[in-house]
Amino acid sequence: MAKVAAIIGGGVIGGGWAARFAIMGWDVRIFDPDPEAERKMSEVMANAERSLPMLYDVPLPARGKMTFHSSIAEAVEGASYVQESVPERLEIKHKTLAEIQKHLDPEAVIGSSTSGFKPSELQEGAKDPTQILVAHPFNPVYLVPLVELVPGDNHDPRAVDWARTVLTEIGMYPLVVSAEIDAHIADRFLEAVWREALWLVKDGIATTEEIDNAIRYGFGLRWAQMGLFETYRVAGGEAGMRHFMAQFGPALKWPWTKLMDVPEFTDELVDMIANQSDAQSGQHSIRELERLRDNNLVAIMRALKGQGAGAGLLIKDHDATLRGALEDSVPLVTMQRKVPVDWGDMNGHMNEGRYGQVFSDASEELMAHVGADQAYVDAGNSYFTVETSVKYLVETHIGEDITVETTVKLGEGKKLRLWHEMKRQSDGEILATCDQFLLHVSLETRRSCPPLAHVQEAVERLAKAHGSTEGNVQGSE
Amino acid sequence: MAKVAAIIGGGVIGGGWAARFAIMGWDVRIFDPDPEAERKMSEVMANAERSLPMLYDVPLPARGKMTFHSSIAEAVEGASYVQESVPERLEIKHKTLAEIQKHLDPEAVIGSSTSGFKPSELQEGAKDPTQILVAHPFNPVYLVPLVELVPGDNHDPRAVDWARTVLTEIGMYPLVVSAEIDAHIADRFLEAVWREALWLVKDGIATTEEIDNAIRYGFGLRWAQMGLFETYRVAGGEAGMRHFMAQFGPALKWPWTKLMDVPEFTDELVDMIANQSDAQSGQHSIRELERLRDNNLVAIMRALKGQGAGAGLLIKDHDATLRGALEDSVPLVTMQRKVPVDWGDMNGHMNEGRYGQVFSDASEELMAHVGADQAYVDAGNSYFTVETSVKYLVETHIGEDITVETTVKLGEGKKLRLWHEMKRQSDGEILATCDQFLLHVSLETRRSCPPLAHVQEAVERLAKAHGSTEGNVQGSE
Repeated sequence: MAKVAAIIGGGVIGGGWAARFAIMGWDVRIFDPDPEAERKMSEVMANAERSLPMLYDVPLPARGKMTFHSSIAEAVEGASYVQESVPERLEIKHKTLAEIQKHLDPEAVIGSSTSGFKPSELQEGAKDPTQILVAHPFNPVYLVPLVELVPGDNHDPRAVDWARTVLTEIGMYPLVVSAEIDAHIADRFLEAVWREALWLVKDGIATTEEIDNAIRYGFGLRWAQMGLFETYRVAGGEAGMRHFMAQFGPALKWPWTKLMDVPEFTDELVDMIANQSDAQSGQHSIRELERLRDNNLVAIMRALKGQGAGAGLLIKDHDATLRGALEDSVPLVTMQRKVPVDWGDMNGHMNEGRYGQVFSDASEELMAHVGADQAYVDAGNSYFTVETSVKYLVETHIGEDITVETTVKLGEGKKLRLWHEMKRQSDGEILATCDQFLLHVSLETRRSCPPLAHVQEAVERLAKAHGSTEGNVQGSE
Repeated sequence: MAKVAAIIGGGVIGGGWAARFAIMGWDVRIFDPDPEAERKMSEVMANAERSLPMLYDVPLPARGKMTFHSSIAEAVEGASYVQESVPERLEIKHKTLAEIQKHLDPEAVIGSSTSGFKPSELQEGAKDPTQILVAHPFNPVYLVPLVELVPGDNHDPRAVDWARTVLTEIGMYPLVVSAEIDAHIADRFLEAVWREALWLVKDGIATTEEIDNAIRYGFGLRWAQMGLFETYRVAGGEAGMRHFMAQFGPALKWPWTKLMDVPEFTDELVDMIANQSDAQSGQHSIRELERLRDNNLVAIMRALKGQGAGAGLLIKDHDATLRGALEDSVPLVTMQRKVPVDWGDMNGHMNEGRYGQVFSDASEELMAHVGADQAYVDAGNSYFTVETSVKYLVETHIGEDITVETTVKLGEGKKLRLWHEMKRQSDGEILATCDQFLLHVSLETRRSCPPLAHVQEAVERLAKAHGSTEGNVQGSE
């Protein structure tokens, strides 16, 4: 069917849907009676345009055409998929759905963004109830992949298939929820946590910030990758899920939350969960799951470190307390570190692309050492790298401890030439080398100029100590 | 005080503590009566040694000495901090704590890993109750930063300070919980979610795997960075936290979870939460918070993509469906992409180190194009990069759309020389160039050798079409 989606109801949710569809190459036809709709949606679209394509390492399809329409009838013309995101009042939903169905191609499907209504409620009195499904997304819709797809008892498998195909094609993960239930699945957890959180704040046990920190520095990091049950499967260790449940089971009777309507902890329930957990994760040993978990935790925390956020900011601050001044050796030891998992490929090798990172980080250490540190840059002065030549000598592996030794080959005026050797710590073997040429620039004029006196002196002192032999860099190999 | 920690009780938790202390430079003295303790702890230590240092970009302190002792008396000798992780039975805890206190320096502090007991319960009958605090960690202790530090009413501020100092020094985030409460804070949420999850499985609404997917493809990604309240603050939009609560408030009365003992939704509670949220996040506008959230989501999902896990695997799979065959143009367009946030520095520039990534990714595209794809590599053949020279011409920014054009300058026998130009899409300006020399190797012999015939032909065809001028690479600039 044609890649044409109708978005009925704008705002943050409708805007997120529109952005996802358009960025993934669908034409998007929008109806929203709010006179502010176009402005609001264009703001969401700008956020989405900036961030969604960053997730991808391939060119995306040509953007779909986005048009605004003055009626539902016009908006749904030619659409093969409609997403309804009007306010959460059943009479509004019914009226809107009826108007959509009056004009929509009978082969098309309607997804509703509702978090509160079950499909049977939405379908009441509909011309074709099987055309209406719940497709409940999560904010921001243009980035978070989960969408709960709830067809209800009265459904047409072809409609469910089409919805699943469309949602997958725009990069989402349609979780088909076969039973109708209030709040679907994810919002039940959010609601339980919300209720407990309200108690904690109300009772003065913790503030909103303390609660957020308890989540983002703790189990939030685990849940971003494995969720609840697989995390506990690992915690259970070799003894497995049944062992974990036996340990954790009694807590159901304890006042560990104020939410006390608990299911009975029977052998049958334990079996059910242990068997489902086996089906889900049984192909991995606990050792493998531990490895996956740790790799993901390292990668997530390093990702957050790059953004200076959450648990990554803690590590960044900790880095700063551990960072010592560079010792004035010849050559300078500008890096001593372990190759982290996020620098590797699936086969355990350090990616070719990360050698540039290593030598760039090494030269930043040298910069700080000669006084061209962040404050120097903030004051409008900097060294820019003009050219680097990297030689790849020996493969490097994830987890290897590496060292970079740096020699100043030339330090005259605005010119700086560095020679880096990256070595394996265990045996000193040279893994790669880098010849790096930098020019000092003024960040104001964006032109090259000599460094400030204290940096100039430090660079010249190093060049002399390192036996600078201008122009003869290759000689050091 | 001396950097000597005693670890009483091994296992997964005690082992995680021991590893963190030792890797951060503390001597660690261990007591555990389990004859398997040394083996179990060395397995945890191996996991920790592999992963914890990967979080850091600086050299870590020299490893502490790790010793095993046959009695508590011997283990706590000279320790300034003791971490108790014995089984969760109060009489065992009391006996252990009494023995520790008998031999421990009165200035030292004892943290208990208990999740179930309040400090007042642990302190009952103690020689010096103020020496005993709850210090509740989260698995894996060597990676997850959160530790709940609960001193109880009967505490000595100096002991709390020392515990906080020690825990921060080993890279953790001590969340001081001032009120005693069952299960402290984080486990209350875990327990609420666990109870709801048991209902969903028991009632046949969702399997363990579906629940895990609902978490890790949805709100888990949000919670890893912002937690609960800040996430909702953003969802509330410009209208703020009060608006969000007004919308979400009525759900407290709805059957959105089976956990129904809910706090009363009063204006007072709304004010309390809105005010705390202002104190926590009020320094950022909603636009700024949206930007932070989106950057973190992109970085986390890309980190998971690198590991082929969780939401990142979804995107990787989606990449594959979007990836088209390279068109046979001259030059080849080997990359069209947006510079993602995880390639940038805090000032919005693309890191120098990531240029290597760009050109390495571009040459991988070319490899696939000539038939040297993953299957070719799996069969034991590959091109290895021997040398790259990158020229940095113009600064590149996060979010810019870039293209790489690649020319085959030489394709003879085992030799391959590529010339890449990275351009800004909007105006075609050349941002950087790369001269890359590769050799074909046999992965079996690890020596250079000619490529297989079909690859050789494809490479020669390209070299001819691209007007290969052997040895004169610079001429193309």
